[in-house]
Amino acid sequence: MTTQKTWRVAVLPGDGIGPEVIAQATRALDTLAASDPGLALEYDTFEWPSHAWHKAHGESAPADYLAQLAGYDAILLGALGDPGPIDDANRYLLSDSDSLAPLLEIRKGFDQWVCERPVRRLDGALQYLADPRANDIDMLVIRENSEGEYVNQGGRLAQGTPNEVVTQTAVFTHRATDRIIRHAFEQARARVALRKVEGRERDFGGKAAQVCLVTKRNAQKFWGDMYTEMFAAIAKDYPDIATHHELVDAACMKFVSHPWAFDVVVASNLHGDILTDLAAVLNGGMGVSPSANLNPSDRTRPPMFEPTHGSAPDIAGQNRAGPAAMLLTAAMMLDWMGEADEAAARAGQRLKQAVADDLAANADQRRATDTIGDAVIAALEKA
Amino acid sequence: MTTQKTWRVAVLPGDGIGPEVIAQATRALDTLAASDPGLALEYDTFEWPSHAWHKAHGESAPADYLAQLAGYDAILLGALGDPGPIDDANRYLLSDSDSLAPLLEIRKGFDQWVCERPVRRLDGALQYLADPRANDIDMLVIRENSEGEYVNQGGRLAQGTPNEVVTQTAVFTHRATDRIIRHAFEQARARVALRKVEGRERDFGGKAAQVCLVTKRNAQKFWGDMYTEMFAAIAKDYPDIATHHELVDAACMKFVSHPWAFDVVVASNLHGDILTDLAAVLNGGMGVSPSANLNPSDRTRPPMFEPTHGSAPDIAGQNRAGPAAMLLTAAMMLDWMGEADEAAARAGQRLKQAVADDLAANADQRRATDTIGDAVIAALEKA
Ligand SMILES: CC(C)[C@H](C(=O)O)[C@@H](O)C(=O)O
Ligand SMILES: CC(C)[C@H](C(=O)O)[C@@H](O)C(=O)O
Repeated sequence: MTTQKTWRVAVLPGDGIGPEVIAQATRALDTLAASDPGLALEYDTFEWPSHAWHKAHGESAPADYLAQLAGYDAILLGALGDPGPIDDANRYLLSDSDSLAPLLEIRKGFDQWVCERPVRRLDGALQYLADPRANDIDMLVIRENSEGEYVNQGGRLAQGTPNEVVTQTAVFTHRATDRIIRHAFEQARARVALRKVEGRERDFGGKAAQVCLVTKRNAQKFWGDMYTEMFAAIAKDYPDIATHHELVDAACMKFVSHPWAFDVVVASNLHGDILTDLAAVLNGGMGVSPSANLNPSDRTRPPMFEPTHGSAPDIAGQNRAGPAAMLLTAAMMLDWMGEADEAAARAGQRLKQAVADDLAANADQRRATDTIGDAVIAALEKA
Repeated sequence: MTTQKTWRVAVLPGDGIGPEVIAQATRALDTLAASDPGLALEYDTFEWPSHAWHKAHGESAPADYLAQLAGYDAILLGALGDPGPIDDANRYLLSDSDSLAPLLEIRKGFDQWVCERPVRRLDGALQYLADPRANDIDMLVIRENSEGEYVNQGGRLAQGTPNEVVTQTAVFTHRATDRIIRHAFEQARARVALRKVEGRERDFGGKAAQVCLVTKRNAQKFWGDMYTEMFAAIAKDYPDIATHHELVDAACMKFVSHPWAFDVVVASNLHGDILTDLAAVLNGGMGVSPSANLNPSDRTRPPMFEPTHGSAPDIAGQNRAGPAAMLLTAAMMLDWMGEADEAAARAGQRLKQAVADDLAANADQRRATDTIGDAVIAALEKA
């Protein structure tokens, strides 16, 4: 099916290296659109560098930023986080939380309840693991992105005194647990289909895909039990998919010792945060790891695509930041659009291929930001 | 100083492979004691296999097990965890938590408020990382072991229904935070002294050791702030030690990408659980990773020494489990005794050396449990 849809993208360069890498992504998107009349992309850029904005306006983004972004089809983010200098108590002047507030607020505001990071190493990407099987990792880490350990409920009693007691409460609902676990099983099925097409079938005890649930149920019983029970119940609806369970500590260990054994992994917000970062290392590091924050149940709410890396203020403005993760993030956005738009699907493939080819051809990781951008764009123009 | 102290050890073989590996450890301890009149060790063995005990008595250990253990100088544990078969809801008949209850209860009951896992790879141990610098990792992960995410407070509202809401609350106190952070700085200082003796000094911006605090303060503000503030305040008492801060997701990533940059790492109970397991991988895996649960502020309460590995019921009774982690755990116990007893200190060194030599001489990881035990004991008898 081909639609005439024009995709409206809100581009947020953000902080630090964000503006530099996003510039390469928009150039690549322009090149793709110029060469394919079927692909219609429009974007508006929102310059809200958190520290500078905070200095000027006393808040890290305009008060109505969610409203400003709500009408777009997707949000493409460079990087957020620039808390400014550190004070005596080793705290940032603009606290981490304030500086990153928009990131977490956007996820919450548009109910982007799943964060996905695919792991399939590109040739030429860094390889941190010694075992050659690590080149064949094919994993999708799915993180619950809307609640759990991130609700930030709690408080400080007798703050700053020897009697201080702090509580930090995590909240988990049936509703959010149900949708994230079902999503994991759906993604497992989609992978079966894709792997068949690509001739890379896998076998998990006679089934073609597996979902691994991660909890810490042996020490955190309440939510561990709910997740475990719901996982078992939902698995009955997916008899074609194998299931597995790991405790988070063991899962982290196995992500290093034999990550090739995993397929789809589903975890709570905090565990998912940790596992997706480990997944990024397996991918070859932050430099090549894209991620998506999605709301699969309501496509009228914009998803947000962001590279795994942070804003790296220490190398900002030096034309040194690798743009591969950002370019692959743009490709992930095109893939998502591609579920409803053939031209976008084609463009996503082309962009991913161009980045992969560039990486495979250039072991030198120290090329300038725009040198890599130029090379990828030249390849897109040729292809 | 030499004491005439007789060390009384409570030996808990536990479940699965526990009894097999602990048999090698007690043989090694006997050999050490036999060859050094200065070393006086006595032990009693407590056979409380959790699943079998539960079957026979309806509880996973005798009701008064803490009282039974209280009089000992130290507890040496093989492995706990044998929940028995899994039911339809994918839950163990004897739940994980019940099966492991004694482990957590012993930690709590004797206020073993610190869990330590040192990382220094032994030659011949598995190396999961590709970078050769990973052979020189020299790290100590210190886990808060008494509270935090492990208090298991919370509940399930509307359990099992679509309206279910679960809370899981973590509790952190000034008292426990203060002692664990101070302990980390003290250990950093001890490492400086040791490294001087051994000629392996390190440099952290002009200081000879570093403590890295791990939190998730950008998403879990309440305890993240308290930890961060207290860390900054306590650091002022240790101007000779460098400080650093990582978020837990980044810390996990860096444990894989450049672990050699770390020195002492201090983290909450859950984060520490994850980081110590990753540390075990850096060590060469579960098979060679010992750990200690200590109460440094009250040496009249027994500490517990346990290998990082679990009970591995799938290979139990087959004489296949590697005893190296258990032997190194016994050496860690001797080291701890060695703080007050020269003969124990010597014995700890000898045992560690014998295991290291055996590992270096035998790349074959598939030797039988007792074959490895025999080789280590033969070496101890010669040395
Ligand atoms: C910046 C931080 C709040 C965020 C998170 O923990 O979710 C980041 O680590 C991520 O994974 O996107
Ligand atoms: C068995 C489990 C409860 C325990 C923990 O999480 O503390 C284990 O993982 C450990 O690290 O000793």
